Amino acid sequence: MTKDPLVVFTPSGKRGRVTAGTPVLTAARQLGVDLDSVCGGRGICSKCQIAPAFGEFPKHGIRSADSALSEWNAVEARYAETRGLAPGRRLSCQARILGDVVIDVPPESQVHRQVVRKAAAARVIEMDPATRLYYVEVEAPDMHEPSGDLERLTRALAAQWGIEPLSVAPAILSRLQRILRDGLWKITVALHKTDHSAVPRLIAAWPGLHERGLYGLAIDLGSTTIAAHLTDLDSGAVAASSGMMNPQIRFGEDLMSRVSYAMMTPGGAEEMTQAVREAISALAGEVATEAGIDPTLILEVVFVCNPVMHHLLLGIDPVELGQAPFALATSSALNLTAADLGLVALPAAAQVYILPCIAGHVGADAAAVALSEQPGKSEDLVLIVDVGTNAEILLGDRTRVLACSSPTGPAFEGAQISAGQRAAPGAIEAVRIDPVTKEPRFRIIGSKFWSDEPGFAKAAARNGITGICGSGIIEAVAEMRMAGLLDSSGLIGSAEQTGSLRSLPDGRTHAYLLHDGRPEGGPLITVTQGDIRAIQLAKSALYAGARLLMDERGVDRVDRVVLAGAFGAHISPLHAMVLGMIPDVPLDKVTSAGNAAGTGARIALCNLAARRQIEAEVRAITKVETAIEPRFQEHFVAANALPHASDPFPELAREVTLPSVRFNAGGDNGGRRRRRRG
Amino acid sequence: MTKDPLVVFTPSGKRGRVTAGTPVLTAARQLGVDLDSVCGGRGICSKCQIAPAFGEFPKHGIRSADSALSEWNAVEARYAETRGLAPGRRLSCQARILGDVVIDVPPESQVHRQVVRKAAAARVIEMDPATRLYYVEVEAPDMHEPSGDLERLTRALAAQWGIEPLSVAPAILSRLQRILRDGLWKITVALHKTDHSAVPRLIAAWPGLHERGLYGLAIDLGSTTIAAHLTDLDSGAVAASSGMMNPQIRFGEDLMSRVSYAMMTPGGAEEMTQAVREAISALAGEVATEAGIDPTLILEVVFVCNPVMHHLLLGIDPVELGQAPFALATSSALNLTAADLGLVALPAAAQVYILPCIAGHVGADAAAVALSEQPGKSEDLVLIVDVGTNAEILLGDRTRVLACSSPTGPAFEGAQISAGQRAAPGAIEAVRIDPVTKEPRFRIIGSKFWSDEPGFAKAAARNGITGICGSGIIEAVAEMRMAGLLDSSGLIGSAEQTGSLRSLPDGRTHAYLLHDGRPEGGPLITVTQGDIRAIQLAKSALYAGARLLMDERGVDRVDRVVLAGAFGAHISPLHAMVLGMIPDVPLDKVTSAGNAAGTGARIALCNLAARRQIEAEVRAITKVETAIEPRFQEHFVAANALPHASDPFPELAREVTLPSVRFNAGGDNGGRRRRRRG
Repeated sequence: MTKDPLVVFTPSGKRGRVTAGTPVLTAARQLGVDLDSVCGGRGICSKCQIAPAFGEFPKHGIRSADSALSEWNAVEARYAETRGLAPGRRLSCQARILGDVVIDVPPESQVHRQVVRKAAAARVIEMDPATRLYYVEVEAPDMHEPSGDLERLTRALAAQWGIEPLSVAPAILSRLQRILRDGLWKITVALHKTDHSAVPRLIAAWPGLHERGLYGLAIDLGSTTIAAHLTDLDSGAVAASSGMMNPQIRFGEDLMSRVSYAMMTPGGAEEMTQAVREAISALAGEVATEAGIDPTLILEVVFVCNPVMHHLLLGIDPVELGQAPFALATSSALNLTAADLGLVALPAAAQVYILPCIAGHVGADAAAVALSEQPGKSEDLVLIVDVGTNAEILLGDRTRVLACSSPTGPAFEGAQISAGQRAAPGAIEAVRIDPVTKEPRFRIIGSKFWSDEPGFAKAAARNGITGICGSGIIEAVAEMRMAGLLDSSGLIGSAEQTGSLRSLPDGRTHAYLLHDGRPEGGPLITVTQGDIRAIQLAKSALYAGARLLMDERGVDRVDRVVLAGAFGAHISPLHAMVLGMIPDVPLDKVTSAGNAAGTGARIALCNLAARRQIEAEVRAITKVETAIEPRFQEHFVAANALPHASDPFPELAREVTLPSVRFNAGGDNGGRRRRRRG
Repeated sequence: MTKDPLVVFTPSGKRGRVTAGTPVLTAARQLGVDLDSVCGGRGICSKCQIAPAFGEFPKHGIRSADSALSEWNAVEARYAETRGLAPGRRLSCQARILGDVVIDVPPESQVHRQVVRKAAAARVIEMDPATRLYYVEVEAPDMHEPSGDLERLTRALAAQWGIEPLSVAPAILSRLQRILRDGLWKITVALHKTDHSAVPRLIAAWPGLHERGLYGLAIDLGSTTIAAHLTDLDSGAVAASSGMMNPQIRFGEDLMSRVSYAMMTPGGAEEMTQAVREAISALAGEVATEAGIDPTLILEVVFVCNPVMHHLLLGIDPVELGQAPFALATSSALNLTAADLGLVALPAAAQVYILPCIAGHVGADAAAVALSEQPGKSEDLVLIVDVGTNAEILLGDRTRVLACSSPTGPAFEGAQISAGQRAAPGAIEAVRIDPVTKEPRFRIIGSKFWSDEPGFAKAAARNGITGICGSGIIEAVAEMRMAGLLDSSGLIGSAEQTGSLRSLPDGRTHAYLLHDGRPEGGPLITVTQGDIRAIQLAKSALYAGARLLMDERGVDRVDRVVLAGAFGAHISPLHAMVLGMIPDVPLDKVTSAGNAAGTGARIALCNLAARRQIEAEVRAITKVETAIEPRFQEHFVAANALPHASDPFPELAREVTLPSVRFNAGGDNGGRRRRRRG
């Protein structure tokens, strides 16, 4: 008696015996192998392609004859002729298993394929989208059995895919009859689930087999900019990205001025809601155009944003977020529709997911950072800092995660700095000061050359040298300290004290001349005493927040630091530590996560299970409110000084002696002579 | 050892022993007694009032002392002082059971109270509304525990009412914070369930204890008129009713001309959808104003309508309903929101329920008739006829229900009749013709007098005598037949043949002069041969539909007939039977159900379980499509003649001899001499 054929699927390794003649797709389903199919085995969608291997497979303990699968049949031949089929590929719904065989499921045939992010940390996103396509063939209407078109579609989904019950977005009802007739009673439907156990909801439909794909938008809704990443929900690939300024800027540069606007202006909150929704709609249209797709194919949107933007997006007056106890209207994750948010460029039934907020000052953006950086799965203790107008700080490892927000103010973004500006071409983004000559050199955004290099002039001529952005001012202050232009209290020395003519008198204090563009009609760019104070306040707040979480956790050191945020990507870890922005760790333990919030949004867009995961994690996070912790003030005050940076900083590659500086009568709590090594 | 006190609740008769000191409300809940409470036992809502009885109750086997309940407490005293409490009433959440006692739960304290309709058939509607109020006290926000306001509300509902999980209408989110703060963290929420087992959805909220009630709209959306009944969802009482013309009339008088308009005019269906939605919105505002309530208190809407109106309301092009196989886009009941239907006068989250359609020509209005008239629960075989442009016909008893639609055309509504008009003041609505003199007398709408009575002239002077409406033409034709002015084929005799000068020559045929208003500047009102033919076609179609269902059911008689519809209320059963509109049954077995569709809408509005019931019943109804049944044509042709009515019709109270009439060469299949009795 012959045994049933043995089939082994790779890469999963799932194996089992099936009745001879079983289609490969059926065998895969029986064995729980992840193998895609939109058409349900009708040989038209090509999603179920597999690559059989014949021969000897000692690892799998089988030996497979060339005839272990059925011959090509007419369906495959027709498919290969009209659409093309790569050599060695078969349609698994057509090929039948006749003998022992090893079958490889290529990544593009897996539903839950893994997508590797190209960005810094190699991160794998498993595809598990909330919306999927199903092709069905529906009975034509019959006067003898007068059920509605929708009811016959519902029956077909139950019979052909085992999907029941079903809910239906009202917006679909008005188009269903046309679509069914245009497709001659063949239809592809998009079904959305808010959860793996939820009742699927019919949110879109197309005549016949829909082959133009499904897309999702991951939107990072910041106070200053809105970034959208259009993602193919099948492959996980980013089809297009685009960004725009948040039009709410006209109501207030920073969050608190927008909250004030809402408080002071009748209808102000509605006005800002309207503005941001229109902008998002426009951005969605833009990014679809860029990718060359119809915006009706965008059926999922994920938002990450801070609590104020969260409320303004939802049409909630943010006034409560501007005053203690900083109560959120809702902290839970939200499942909404494009229609609920008035996103008119998208189909009304497109599904919107907004990540949960952690606390009144720690928003869905911080939750997205947690989803991307997974502090709760870290073996070592990681401090994650997302620097913006407020800094969101996460500290944790697999045992426990804590979070807080720290009121850094906008200095790190170049605001409230005398020559400050946003990161844009022409802004000074990196600064080096020679500790001997006290002469600066710098780089501007838009050029790879330093200001003392030959290529610089051309870039400077193109964009001008317009100001100094957040990373530039951080480096400038740190370099000034290292060059002995500042004492440990942050006071800028006079020309006499520093021995540099770049120390200019500025009222009762001094300023350091970084660049005088006036001869070319540009600005005079100095770092003033006020700038130093603003940076000191910001960095003290950031440091104090981190320390507070460390206190809560009962530690006085962390194993590693992750700088998140678009701005985080540009901060020099060395200068951040010189400045005392972050606790000391070995420099190679400071990494940038890039736009971690945006990455978190993309993960939530592509993976339904990740949504439930971050919701559970956010509930488990210990929230620490800096405003009511007396120790925050203590840490804040203590962190005001500018100590020398810890040794060693080999990256500086300078063989110089830092002078001990002492300009004023106050105690010098940081200045000590030491030697830097190369 | 003393036994625990025995408590007996009336009228339910539920009884049991409870621990001494148990509040009556708690005891009621333990024993499953239907006793309302919105505030959850805090002594502020007064919904839980009961009337204790003390003394000897042999029926209940208990004897009760005056001290069987605790003394009035401060809460009750304060309530009685500020709000009033009827003598003998107690608040069941405050009064505690100390000894054996009988406690009456008055109707207004029952959630599931029964409401008796005032209309014709005494019908009881049990209150079981889909939306209910819950008062909760919510924790104030706390910086140490930064959950959102919604999350604290959710926790309070779980803790205080055992309600979880909860879903939330997005429209509520933006108002929740204000409401919670205005109510000092006390709030009343309206929770809606689409089904008893569904997750409740938060659809409205008010600060503190909300005492202005909840309302629902039952809307009968007809082709010609839209009627709305505003109903108190607590008491079931109708607070106001209003109606208006369907503005779609400007796109076509009858349904098929609207379908044609949709077919022929690009954007025509959308235009009609827009028009009807605006009208419904206006009507909702009107009826709220009439009742003196805020439209935001309207949280439920139920629609009944024919399939074409159903589709146009939903924004579905009705074109498929105008051609075989008459496929509905959806036949299922629908749960939507006011926002989905663009009903801007109502809260966006107000819940809309649309009854299921039975078939392509048998709509949600027929389902509502079935819900009101309950053929599926009838012991005897009932034929229910809802006469309008199409007649919807139901036949059934508890074993089986059948339904069909019959294309009667609009003749029964006075359309396509030479002097026809809608039922409006001035229209002839009742006609009697003296079989001897052949002279008519009639009544017009707006007057109780017959035209030969003294008071008539005044009414006629006020409104004029403007035409003849549906019930008038039916009576006129029946009376003409009984007076020998028509032969059995429907031919009007000449003056010579009938012996009446009211038989006027009219081209090659004759017309019967009902009223000549020309001397007063009014119209000449005659019944023409064309009118007779139109009524014959209509009544044949109606009769054939009923016969077809009887064939399907295998019977040749029914036990009773119910005439439904606003028009049905005005048809004289006698004349309907003389005309052969309906199968013969004893006259006392013909009843009018009034606006049964409207009643069905009100039942669905007040009772959630009734929605599931009618959905199940509609699925079980045998649908018969007249268009494809050859026997329909046979019955239709056979029913064309005008037989004499069956004996006896004592109501006619005429001691006259009907002449045998025979005008033409055709066979006389109905004329036979007989004697009427008084």
